[in-house]
Amino acid sequence: MNDTLRVIHNRRSVRAYSDRPITREEKNEILEATFRAPTAGNLMLYSIIEVEAQEIKDRLAVTCDNQPFIARAPYILLFLADYQRWMDYFKQSGVSGLAESLGVVERKPQTGDLLLACCDALIAAQTAVIAAESMGIGSCYIGDILEQYEIHRELFDLPPHTLPITMLCFGYPAVPGKKLTTRFDKEMIVHTDKYRRLSSDELGKGFARLESDFRVGHHSSQYANAGQAVYFRKFASRFAAEMNRSVKEMLKNWE
Amino acid sequence: MNDTLRVIHNRRSVRAYSDRPITREEKNEILEATFRAPTAGNLMLYSIIEVEAQEIKDRLAVTCDNQPFIARAPYILLFLADYQRWMDYFKQSGVSGLAESLGVVERKPQTGDLLLACCDALIAAQTAVIAAESMGIGSCYIGDILEQYEIHRELFDLPPHTLPITMLCFGYPAVPGKKLTTRFDKEMIVHTDKYRRLSSDELGKGFARLESDFRVGHHSSQYANAGQAVYFRKFASRFAAEMNRSVKEMLKNWE
Repeated sequence: MNDTLRVIHNRRSVRAYSDRPITREEKNEILEATFRAPTAGNLMLYSIIEVEAQEIKDRLAVTCDNQPFIARAPYILLFLADYQRWMDYFKQSGVSGLAESLGVVERKPQTGDLLLACCDALIAAQTAVIAAESMGIGSCYIGDILEQYEIHRELFDLPPHTLPITMLCFGYPAVPGKKLTTRFDKEMIVHTDKYRRLSSDELGKGFARLESDFRVGHHSSQYANAGQAVYFRKFASRFAAEMNRSVKEMLKNWE
Repeated sequence: MNDTLRVIHNRRSVRAYSDRPITREEKNEILEATFRAPTAGNLMLYSIIEVEAQEIKDRLAVTCDNQPFIARAPYILLFLADYQRWMDYFKQSGVSGLAESLGVVERKPQTGDLLLACCDALIAAQTAVIAAESMGIGSCYIGDILEQYEIHRELFDLPPHTLPITMLCFGYPAVPGKKLTTRFDKEMIVHTDKYRRLSSDELGKGFARLESDFRVGHHSSQYANAGQAVYFRKFASRFAAEMNRSVKEMLKNWE
């Protein structure tokens, strides 16, 4: 196994950070690597907001489903799907006049453009994660940045053609070498040539480890199995409802 | 610079592949690394379809905006945002009955769930890219997989709670060491604490290299500048219109 594969295989999300700060030089090293991430048509349909102000970190620790460790992250990067830069440049380039003289209707970014920009932003984010990891700097994705759109829009002055798709906390790990989490078996995730819905038996086998962990950890649960627990605690949770409400609001700018 | 950063910095998209095949062992090495990608709540909200059949590759070379190199890719992975596996397991776990007895309405995946699943899928995809690159295997994203949803849905038997968010072609490069593409300057991409719309001057400076490349390469263009060219050739192109139509159709399953 080469060094890069070893970095990828040993990574796990880090939520407890040591006091060691991340230097400006290290931040730049992460960012420079990030910029090398592939991007659709080399358009770089994303922006990154470095969160430096403690009061913003404190706010995010609340708005992102109350996760206090966010406030203690030495370094935070917010990744935006971003068409605003290009829309502003199209305007400056006289696109409106040319469209009019060609007799075509000018268009605004839509959901297809948005998903493509989300691809760019997330490809960049994971490049940042692996770059940081290779430098010994741990990280954790905050998917909850999809919640509370109205608050985040105001907090970061987000213009309409941007969307906060993910956020990353970085820091040197307080506790090194924690155990890796388990993953579903390959057979659950990888298909060949066609998507194959899992049979009842295959679902049973594929989720067996999760069920066994559930039985060990949740004796007094109101749920009969891990499937019910994941449904009610995650999929149908308060934060999932907020995420769906918030994203619905975000999408209004892309329709 | 460590090995991983070097891998990231030297990567560029590879569309011309040598005859050297990718072995099953190498494919598994890429996939095993991919599974270590971070995933929201360890739910692995994605699936991967390995495209092995030549007739499917041939079809994709047409449906993904006519890019013949796709048919020649030794290895192709289609990444799906996938809630189907969990929805099927929720059903099998008796979620409906419990929801009814609790007097709550059962819910289906919505656009917020979808974006979270897209995060998982794309984080996994970029992990695959970096893993492959470290093994000397080049890759290229095919964002055009967002087009022609109805055709791809049939081609891959996609159930409703999956969405083909991106596709990757892999292969050993035919021509080693091609020049890296340029990127926007850091000042264009990175903000601190707040999003800052670029001023007219900053836009001018930030896009100057693009304009200079445009002036060299497009003497007989009908467009006055690169902004107009990007708008009409990419943003308002036929394939962008198809992508937006197709994604709109996809989103109907998540509303």
